[in-house]
Amino acid sequence: MNRSLLQLATSRRSVRRFSKKPVSMRDVIYALNTARQAPSGANGQPWRFIVVDDPDLKVRLREASEKGERSLYENVKGEFREWLLTHGLNPSKPFLEEAPLLVAVLMDTSTEYARESVWVAIAHILLALEERGLSTMTYTPSDTGLPLAELEAPLGFKLEAILPVGYSTDETPKEPKKAFEEIVFLNHWGDMLT
Amino acid sequence: MNRSLLQLATSRRSVRRFSKKPVSMRDVIYALNTARQAPSGANGQPWRFIVVDDPDLKVRLREASEKGERSLYENVKGEFREWLLTHGLNPSKPFLEEAPLLVAVLMDTSTEYARESVWVAIAHILLALEERGLSTMTYTPSDTGLPLAELEAPLGFKLEAILPVGYSTDETPKEPKKAFEEIVFLNHWGDMLT
Repeated sequence: MNRSLLQLATSRRSVRRFSKKPVSMRDVIYALNTARQAPSGANGQPWRFIVVDDPDLKVRLREASEKGERSLYENVKGEFREWLLTHGLNPSKPFLEEAPLLVAVLMDTSTEYARESVWVAIAHILLALEERGLSTMTYTPSDTGLPLAELEAPLGFKLEAILPVGYSTDETPKEPKKAFEEIVFLNHWGDMLT
Repeated sequence: MNRSLLQLATSRRSVRRFSKKPVSMRDVIYALNTARQAPSGANGQPWRFIVVDDPDLKVRLREASEKGERSLYENVKGEFREWLLTHGLNPSKPFLEEAPLLVAVLMDTSTEYARESVWVAIAHILLALEERGLSTMTYTPSDTGLPLAELEAPLGFKLEAILPVGYSTDETPKEPKKAFEEIVFLNHWGDMLT
């Protein structure tokens, strides 16, 4: 590996458009093994991953997700609405069908700090895919129950995110970040560290 | 950097005992810059970090946190109680005073997917500290309001975790992980990928 973690984190960005180039299952296994090593509340390891490369299932996940999005977009207000509009987002989620594969991330809701733990594991996946030259984003359907039904998970599991995985053809630049001084303080809110 | 992300994730473990060796602020800045690059819901960047090296403030954070822990330990039941007991955990949190410094992680509750985003950023910190040879863990006080009051954050911010940072003297082995086959499926719950 040639890149430091800061370099990986800096070059990584959320990608919604993917080429048709197939993804090696070896890279996905690498990323999921990295996630497997994440810490979790009381070592509960609440994460489960369903890798989806079946085209029919991708279509069904897309349709189920878009159904929920349409009702979100009819109801969303305020700053989030503005952000959605200025980013050209809409209820259509073609990446769920177009990405060579998807990773559905499910959560065992019976463990302590399940959501926090699952998102630590997701962060591992994002960085590991970046390390392997792959791109993704974290898509959380507005109504997770609909796509979850397609995955036939046992009771007690929730869908936290679907990660479309592939090689980027997305030319949208990375979102700008707040300055270090805006987010880091020393001993007292507002006191600068640097 | 010599280690792959999988190697970093594998070698990293939660540490509660630290040597007195000082932590270079340069390493902490590196880790927080890595966190700054994390993705977030609608690019809300809900994370704020207060680095604490003031010994008096560390003691106050410890006392405030332990106050909340004592009432948790009086009330906790079931599997989580069993886990706490078998791991020798108790309401005393000496690492909040003993670690050379703490990173308090706060969350802007007004943004979309704030908690998910903050924990992605925390994962970046955990891995970046590991890369720099430092250790930490994510400690979430049972009653976050008490230590939050010591930090004098504006309204609308919650305390998500306190990370004690230092060089490990903790000889507890890493918690065992579930097998890959238990957590990863292909297209259908229960169908093995490998």
